[in-house]
Amino acid sequence: MKNHFSWKPLVVVEVAVILLIALPSCNSGNILVVPVDGSHWVNMKVLMEELHLKGHIMTVIRGSNTMYIAEKSPLYTSITIPIRTHLTEDFFPKFLKNVFEVQRGDKYLIKFLKFQKELLFMMSEIHCYSCQMVSDILENTELVKKLKEAQYDLVLTDPALAGGVVLAHYLKLPLVLNVRWIPSGEGHSALAPTPLSYIPSPGSGFSDRMSFTERVINILYCGITVFQQRFMIGPHYQALCDRYFESSCDIETLIQSADIWLMRADFVFEFPRPTMPNVVYMGGFQCKPPKALPEDLEEFVQSSGEHGVILMSLGTFVDSLPSDICDEIAFVFATLPQKVIWRHLGNRPSMLGNNTLLVNWMPQSDLLGHSKVKAFVAHGGTNGVQEAIYHGVPVLGIPLLFDQYDNLLRLKEKGAAKILDIATLERGIFSSAILEILHNPSYRLNMQRLSRLHHDQPNKPLDSAIFWIEYVMRHKGAAHLRSESYKLPWYAYHSVDVIATLLAVPLLLLLTIIGVIRYFCHRVCKIKSE
Amino acid sequence: MKNHFSWKPLVVVEVAVILLIALPSCNSGNILVVPVDGSHWVNMKVLMEELHLKGHIMTVIRGSNTMYIAEKSPLYTSITIPIRTHLTEDFFPKFLKNVFEVQRGDKYLIKFLKFQKELLFMMSEIHCYSCQMVSDILENTELVKKLKEAQYDLVLTDPALAGGVVLAHYLKLPLVLNVRWIPSGEGHSALAPTPLSYIPSPGSGFSDRMSFTERVINILYCGITVFQQRFMIGPHYQALCDRYFESSCDIETLIQSADIWLMRADFVFEFPRPTMPNVVYMGGFQCKPPKALPEDLEEFVQSSGEHGVILMSLGTFVDSLPSDICDEIAFVFATLPQKVIWRHLGNRPSMLGNNTLLVNWMPQSDLLGHSKVKAFVAHGGTNGVQEAIYHGVPVLGIPLLFDQYDNLLRLKEKGAAKILDIATLERGIFSSAILEILHNPSYRLNMQRLSRLHHDQPNKPLDSAIFWIEYVMRHKGAAHLRSESYKLPWYAYHSVDVIATLLAVPLLLLLTIIGVIRYFCHRVCKIKSE
Repeated sequence: MKNHFSWKPLVVVEVAVILLIALPSCNSGNILVVPVDGSHWVNMKVLMEELHLKGHIMTVIRGSNTMYIAEKSPLYTSITIPIRTHLTEDFFPKFLKNVFEVQRGDKYLIKFLKFQKELLFMMSEIHCYSCQMVSDILENTELVKKLKEAQYDLVLTDPALAGGVVLAHYLKLPLVLNVRWIPSGEGHSALAPTPLSYIPSPGSGFSDRMSFTERVINILYCGITVFQQRFMIGPHYQALCDRYFESSCDIETLIQSADIWLMRADFVFEFPRPTMPNVVYMGGFQCKPPKALPEDLEEFVQSSGEHGVILMSLGTFVDSLPSDICDEIAFVFATLPQKVIWRHLGNRPSMLGNNTLLVNWMPQSDLLGHSKVKAFVAHGGTNGVQEAIYHGVPVLGIPLLFDQYDNLLRLKEKGAAKILDIATLERGIFSSAILEILHNPSYRLNMQRLSRLHHDQPNKPLDSAIFWIEYVMRHKGAAHLRSESYKLPWYAYHSVDVIATLLAVPLLLLLTIIGVIRYFCHRVCKIKSE
Repeated sequence: MKNHFSWKPLVVVEVAVILLIALPSCNSGNILVVPVDGSHWVNMKVLMEELHLKGHIMTVIRGSNTMYIAEKSPLYTSITIPIRTHLTEDFFPKFLKNVFEVQRGDKYLIKFLKFQKELLFMMSEIHCYSCQMVSDILENTELVKKLKEAQYDLVLTDPALAGGVVLAHYLKLPLVLNVRWIPSGEGHSALAPTPLSYIPSPGSGFSDRMSFTERVINILYCGITVFQQRFMIGPHYQALCDRYFESSCDIETLIQSADIWLMRADFVFEFPRPTMPNVVYMGGFQCKPPKALPEDLEEFVQSSGEHGVILMSLGTFVDSLPSDICDEIAFVFATLPQKVIWRHLGNRPSMLGNNTLLVNWMPQSDLLGHSKVKAFVAHGGTNGVQEAIYHGVPVLGIPLLFDQYDNLLRLKEKGAAKILDIATLERGIFSSAILEILHNPSYRLNMQRLSRLHHDQPNKPLDSAIFWIEYVMRHKGAAHLRSESYKLPWYAYHSVDVIATLLAVPLLLLLTIIGVIRYFCHRVCKIKSE
């Protein structure tokens, strides 16, 4: 495993540029950003835009196969790492097709196991890709020298893929996480105590109030996560740790040693749960007050009159649903008096009504902030859900994969969303669901209550995030906020050794007393019988 | 127990005044404050002064035997409850004398047990007094009617004595706690998971890094707290709950159901530990930038020249140390080139030097903020410790009782204090300790680092506290930040039932298989033998 990855040369110019801009200045920090691609990058960029406004200098490490992370940007200088991946170009579309097939299959257990297999394979592949990238960096002595000489103030990374965490440890730099997920599951689970009696495991689809059976299943779900981390994902990182660090360590410990966790959640959205002093909640940090719409879109929205507009989008990852489902949805939309704006990249549904506008892209946040928008048909990605909360628009959810069901469940539990199952989605079900969201005022009222709570914070989430990033730069870390308890072995952390000792002492005493009594009884009996 | 307390009539005028001022207004809240006397009241008053500035109206419930809580104040209207207590006037001085005797006795275990007995007796008495006060209120139908009609927005209370918590539940009002201690120990322990492997029990004198033996003792300490709560303190509150609430409840559950916990700690001071979303850390909220000193005091301070000044104070509870110890300390002070300001209310020590000024009271915070002040000899009460952190003055601690040793330990662990044991205090030890604090720069540097960290927060602690009190008024509670997990029975909370089931299933399976195998072996043997 030690020589699993090899180094590919970098463009020298890029390294030179890094060096030029990386000279430390009095008022601005020098930040090394190791992002994750896709919707995660959308999040990271929001932080980076604000850091840029504050005068901080950033260097981004990107893979050569990135989908979203531009090589050139006024925000940052980039270092491109050539990526050799087993993932072919059609990997994600194929994965998605399989997911749809699995979800619409018949038998639940087989569906579930197939889906888990698909997911595990994909997770293992993308973590392998993250590790390969870090290995390529660390094998490139020239690049490592430059990274060390650049004197970064901190590493800002998204630990959903934990390569950036390994790199920060190697460079001995303070570490700030922009986090929702870590390789072993939900971010909190590595950090704060997570009693499984009221904290639902990701993917379980449970709320914080579980029946006995649900609590049993919840623990089994947690087992899947442990298995995944131990056998599918962990080994990739362990190989890196074994190769590049002298003292033994593992990826979980490296993640736990981060200075500040900027958590992409808040407790308007998330179920209340234990947390730690170095976790900063910045849920909805990406949301902004709505800007004016482009003229044609505004005209379309206004044409909806008193009935208003329905938005539909399934996020950046899913271009479109299977065509039969699209037809069912289009049919229902056509029967409504509302206007519909639908982000859809596949074939045009055959049943599309005149009231429905198909778009490749839409200014989603600005639209959600428009007073005419009455409902949001969404897949339940974190960004969309947070934007819906921010603007107070009730959601009709069609979750597809990852955390989407769990996200939507949090809204549903608060009376602000309905959830539909893609497996059983047909016009009757979709129609009654969208009509309920539109005409039962409780959904809108509940969502507006969540929105009021979200806006009522002492600081804006983005301002908090920036404060704590700058805090770590000012104090060269935040060790005093970080519990070192994770360095205890598991049996000590859970006091198993102490409890065993405390139980053993009276037990030994009891056994000794019984032994002595038996011995004397025996002697007495012997004497009597003589 | 049901009729343990009886009602005494109240001054009718007071009730009328409450009603007059308690009419709800648009911009101001209407707050019922149930404080705890002594240094706890000093804290509560800081919050109340700020709430008063914000235009909120407050009603304070005070016992007739209060030491500090004035009947008339521009800040609030008061309701005085006549108190019948078993505590005689000399109870506290006698208790303190006993504590000194116990601490300066010979044998550790006997000392410890005696001290615990003293403490338990005192705790039981003062909780009994708190319960009597609430019972007197609830038996007074006229007063209860007025309290209900006053339409308070919330109850603000210090749950060190939990009468206010019971009252809030009875009046069905949102509840904000100004908290460090609750009847069952440290505030967090009722709320957030508290792994005893790295969270030292109050009074244990351990840090967050414990040896195996310390971890064993830590769990035993926790046992003492449980015993105290279950058998000495809990029954007083249980009698109240049983008498006044129809559905069964206990004081722990009522405390856990508070909307917001304003915790008088922060993680510059406290060891990092799990927390919950509805805990707001306001450690040092009482601290303010220093004001100019009275002219004579400023003159005295300036007369210290380059050597500077030492402050000494043992808080509001302890007027003076035993006279032989005072003499030893006075002797050492007399040998120093520094000037000394000493809050001392007992007999004048015989060895007092010319450099030492004895005072009945001093503007402690303003003095700590003076650049000439070099060291603070203190008992380690929370207020003094927080003020020392705020102003960055290193501490020589002489802890006497309660949380004082634990407070000082937190500073010592961060290299900002030394702790002396009153049992062994004599001139040699005191002299070398104060000289080390004065001349080893690390104490001052470490304390100034803590001070910088304390001041570097997104919001001032007092502003945070006020924000969250007003938040509870705006939203009529903060249930979404409160985990309801405390309503689970203990075995469900800790998943004992689930784990037992998950272990029982394979065990039953194994036993069945063994049974079947044995049955067939038996049959085969039988057949063979036939």
